[in-house]
Amino acid sequence: MSTATISRFPVPELEDLPEDIRSQILAVQEKAGFVPNVFLALAHRPAEFRAFFAYHDALMLKETGKLTKADREMIVTATSARNQCLYCVVAHGALLRIYAKNPLVADQVAVNHLKADITPRQQAMLDFAIKVCLDSASVGDADYAALHAQGFDDEDIWDIAAITAFFGMSNRIANAVSMKPNDEFYLMGRVPKPRT
Amino acid sequence: MSTATISRFPVPELEDLPEDIRSQILAVQEKAGFVPNVFLALAHRPAEFRAFFAYHDALMLKETGKLTKADREMIVTATSARNQCLYCVVAHGALLRIYAKNPLVADQVAVNHLKADITPRQQAMLDFAIKVCLDSASVGDADYAALHAQGFDDEDIWDIAAITAFFGMSNRIANAVSMKPNDEFYLMGRVPKPRT
Amino acid sequence: MSTATISRFPVPELEDLPEDIRSQILAVQEKAGFVPNVFLALAHRPAEFRAFFAYHDALMLKETGKLTKADREMIVTATSARNQCLYCVVAHGALLRIYAKNPLVADQVAVNHLKADITPRQQAMLDFAIKVCLDSASVGDADYAALHAQGFDDEDIWDIAAITAFFGMSNRIANAVSMKPNDEFYLMGRVPKPRT
Amino acid sequence: MSTATISRFPVPELEDLPEDIRSQILAVQEKAGFVPNVFLALAHRPAEFRAFFAYHDALMLKETGKLTKADREMIVTATSARNQCLYCVVAHGALLRIYAKNPLVADQVAVNHLKADITPRQQAMLDFAIKVCLDSASVGDADYAALHAQGFDDEDIWDIAAITAFFGMSNRIANAVSMKPNDEFYLMGRVPKPRT
Amino acid sequence: MSTATISRFPVPELEDLPEDIRSQILAVQEKAGFVPNVFLALAHRPAEFRAFFAYHDALMLKETGKLTKADREMIVTATSARNQCLYCVVAHGALLRIYAKNPLVADQVAVNHLKADITPRQQAMLDFAIKVCLDSASVGDADYAALHAQGFDDEDIWDIAAITAFFGMSNRIANAVSMKPNDEFYLMGRVPKPRT
Amino acid sequence: MSTATISRFPVPELEDLPEDIRSQILAVQEKAGFVPNVFLALAHRPAEFRAFFAYHDALMLKETGKLTKADREMIVTATSARNQCLYCVVAHGALLRIYAKNPLVADQVAVNHLKADITPRQQAMLDFAIKVCLDSASVGDADYAALHAQGFDDEDIWDIAAITAFFGMSNRIANAVSMKPNDEFYLMGRVPKPRT
Repeated sequence: MSTATISRFPVPELEDLPEDIRSQILAVQEKAGFVPNVFLALAHRPAEFRAFFAYHDALMLKETGKLTKADREMIVTATSARNQCLYCVVAHGALLRIYAKNPLVADQVAVNHLKADITPRQQAMLDFAIKVCLDSASVGDADYAALHAQGFDDEDIWDIAAITAFFGMSNRIANAVSMKPNDEFYLMGRVPKPRT
Repeated sequence: MSTATISRFPVPELEDLPEDIRSQILAVQEKAGFVPNVFLALAHRPAEFRAFFAYHDALMLKETGKLTKADREMIVTATSARNQCLYCVVAHGALLRIYAKNPLVADQVAVNHLKADITPRQQAMLDFAIKVCLDSASVGDADYAALHAQGFDDEDIWDIAAITAFFGMSNRIANAVSMKPNDEFYLMGRVPKPRT
Repeated sequence: MSTATISRFPVPELEDLPEDIRSQILAVQEKAGFVPNVFLALAHRPAEFRAFFAYHDALMLKETGKLTKADREMIVTATSARNQCLYCVVAHGALLRIYAKNPLVADQVAVNHLKADITPRQQAMLDFAIKVCLDSASVGDADYAALHAQGFDDEDIWDIAAITAFFGMSNRIANAVSMKPNDEFYLMGRVPKPRT
Repeated sequence: MSTATISRFPVPELEDLPEDIRSQILAVQEKAGFVPNVFLALAHRPAEFRAFFAYHDALMLKETGKLTKADREMIVTATSARNQCLYCVVAHGALLRIYAKNPLVADQVAVNHLKADITPRQQAMLDFAIKVCLDSASVGDADYAALHAQGFDDEDIWDIAAITAFFGMSNRIANAVSMKPNDEFYLMGRVPKPRT
Repeated sequence: MSTATISRFPVPELEDLPEDIRSQILAVQEKAGFVPNVFLALAHRPAEFRAFFAYHDALMLKETGKLTKADREMIVTATSARNQCLYCVVAHGALLRIYAKNPLVADQVAVNHLKADITPRQQAMLDFAIKVCLDSASVGDADYAALHAQGFDDEDIWDIAAITAFFGMSNRIANAVSMKPNDEFYLMGRVPKPRT
Repeated sequence: MSTATISRFPVPELEDLPEDIRSQILAVQEKAGFVPNVFLALAHRPAEFRAFFAYHDALMLKETGKLTKADREMIVTATSARNQCLYCVVAHGALLRIYAKNPLVADQVAVNHLKADITPRQQAMLDFAIKVCLDSASVGDADYAALHAQGFDDEDIWDIAAITAFFGMSNRIANAVSMKPNDEFYLMGRVPKPRT
């Protein structure tokens, strides 16, 4: 896939990017083996790129709270499917499979979280995330109580809401600019990694 | 209104905040005459606060492109009303009245942009923003063409989409944490400023 | 604003109107200081005008029951916002601010009644009104019980339903004929009346 | 069916009603052979009863304009079905069958006007009525143009909108008070009247 | 009505049909006095015709379980109305009237089952059927429990779901090919059969 | 996965099934290497099983018309995703990958067909299928014309509608009985088959 097809907008060459962004992209490439298209598509707007990934990291790399990395990617996958965002369902579904060490769960929560093989705690987490995604105006005390009953505290609830909200933004941008996921994501986490 | 009522979450005291955040808040207070509650509510999470306002400024203080400040606040007001976000409709409606020098337009676009006294160009801008807000999955060539016909170029379209997406995030967070707008916003821009 | 812009339809001159309608309009003008556009727009159809205001007065000037004038205007404001009727949100929001002696409440219930600073009794009243507005087919025993629990009796429930239904009619007519609110309404009740 | 079952609210005895209302009801009974339940249910509120029927008559007995009596009842039947109002679909479906001299058309427009055996002019009329019923906020120039193209003028459009709006009110009241249609309506207009 | 008008697709002549289909149609005609149009419209595709009616009979002529014939037709009528399928509402409404020996119930459940004169057990049955019709993804334990509470066992629940699902298919095909109901159905079951 | 978890309902043992059904299942097992759970779950009802697969085969194994096997599975995958049916999205997504010899297309059409790498002809096909799935009542001449413009004839349109309708039934049954897809489906068609 040429970069010409990953977004409706121009995709900058690595060497034309500001140093901090180029470094960040090279680091991702080093770790993942390829550059996820969201980095290239958003690099079209350096100031927005920096804020986007700072926000992303504050929510997704956060070391406190009771949400596991798999929980967070599960929220992203389930809510991005409701927003019909191809990029995020495919890319974060891959991360979910990897973090959860479960090759099936991403497809399950993307299609219908109520039929997924997940815990009641995760069901409650996704019920709330989907409500924030689709009808945040109606969120209220009863929603907080349902999560408290599953062991989440208020800070966890902020995390769920903020992750949902952040990726709701990401979904809308990706849909509006027709961002395409890298082919690599589709298969990631579905088959055991070859031993080296 | 005590700070206890502006969010479901603890609101930090100014003196307990990291220096950069305290300075930013004091600068806003200096300029506006009061501290908009979003600064206090988000200060609960410093890393997210920094990314949020960096993103906000990248989109709303951007000096290029054909969107005026009033255009941007109009997008925020119209889409936040669709998401039923009290904080953003009230706060950004105030900014819209001020930038547009029009005391009526914020209520008009919040209730029904199709009946607002705005230009055909702004109607097209809001049609697109509302589609990104409510049904981004269906955005396509015809939407771009409708905006091009009104003189917007692709970079302007990115701006409209990104502003809508960013405040869609803000709306969901504000709704989930029950963020309340400052009383001051309700009247701002509705009456001529007293001469000094 | 010329009368030419308050409706898609011809707006009669006062002197061309039947005597009873002209008198009614002059009385309103005497009291309010201006003629609300709904009187002028509906005067295009005298028989409908008479029935409309007879119905309006039967519901809104009714002296029995437990709904205050502020309660009634709150119902109108909240449900008209769901129907996206610019005229009614602006005009009745003004009346709500005045009757409730609260400059903030109209914007709050128009955007999201669940976040408004109103009583639990008013929350229940608006929950019911919004259900009648959006999904009257599902109204049933549980809805009556929820209102009884807040101290409303059946006659109050009829009032809430009938006010919602009447303004649902008004909203649809206003939207269909593009009725515009008078500029005066936007500011009414937001600032203390100057002493005379 | 006893009157106890036609509404959640008390149904007054004829002899307890104000003279004008009793006369009106007796006149209807004389003409129809029975008293439609809407007269009895609304008589619970005499002032509203008078305004309701004055409005009804202004719209439905109006002698000017290009809408036939069958057109008007067709609008009522189609939009009341969208509001799921049992009383109005059954009672006005009966009137539609009679005025249209067509025993099939009421069921057709109640289920799906797009599949009904009606004229293109009536299709356009119902397209508009259903838009006023379900999404009046979006009514605009294109809707007026579509009706003009079928020979309707602006006054006819007012009629279609007002009839839809009035019965949208009626539907909500009937649903909220559980008004039941008379058994007689179900069969009216389906079989040829016996000759006398 | 000529066969040319009962479907967008060619309707075969009886003599051109495979023997088994012709026999089946003649048997229906013998029993009903006319050939329901669904037989003629689907005969355009003999293999699909055979599977459709085999499935239909397995669900609707099934001799076990607690659903009466009237219950089954009530499910079909109520859910077909939600799918706005003219053929099924009219044809199965007729069968419902006949099996329930009730000339009113079909119109009632087609318009709003919550206002129909049916038993609480039937209300629960239709609540479930309508959920399967409109939002099957959300069906879960609570729905099963609500039906168990009314005396339905799991096999009955399968029946309700499968009947709803089968006619949801039928509704979509009928809508897509514009299948028209026979005129005879509209009146069936509304008037007592003449004695012979 | 034990058979106990593939459906809310009892799953018969192969040896307890009628001979024709057991043979059919063994043949599928021979060909696929495993028994897709839909065969086991529906075997609970032999008469329905026979009709279901006869209908399935009439539509999906049909040798005439212009729909390829990949086209048909694409319709199933896209519409089943709208109905949030886990079984059908996963199982038919697998078949789509295999027939299309494309490991990415199933995830693409399941999330958002408008962003999928498919032909304009397939886009039109899916536009129509999704309309039949979600709003069959509005299907009309314009929809037929859009498909004719892409080279589909009326018989192809019947095929698209009937496949959509049939799997809409399947989706509702699978959701109601909580049918689970076999684990094998998730990976099928994503990696090259090992050579033997």
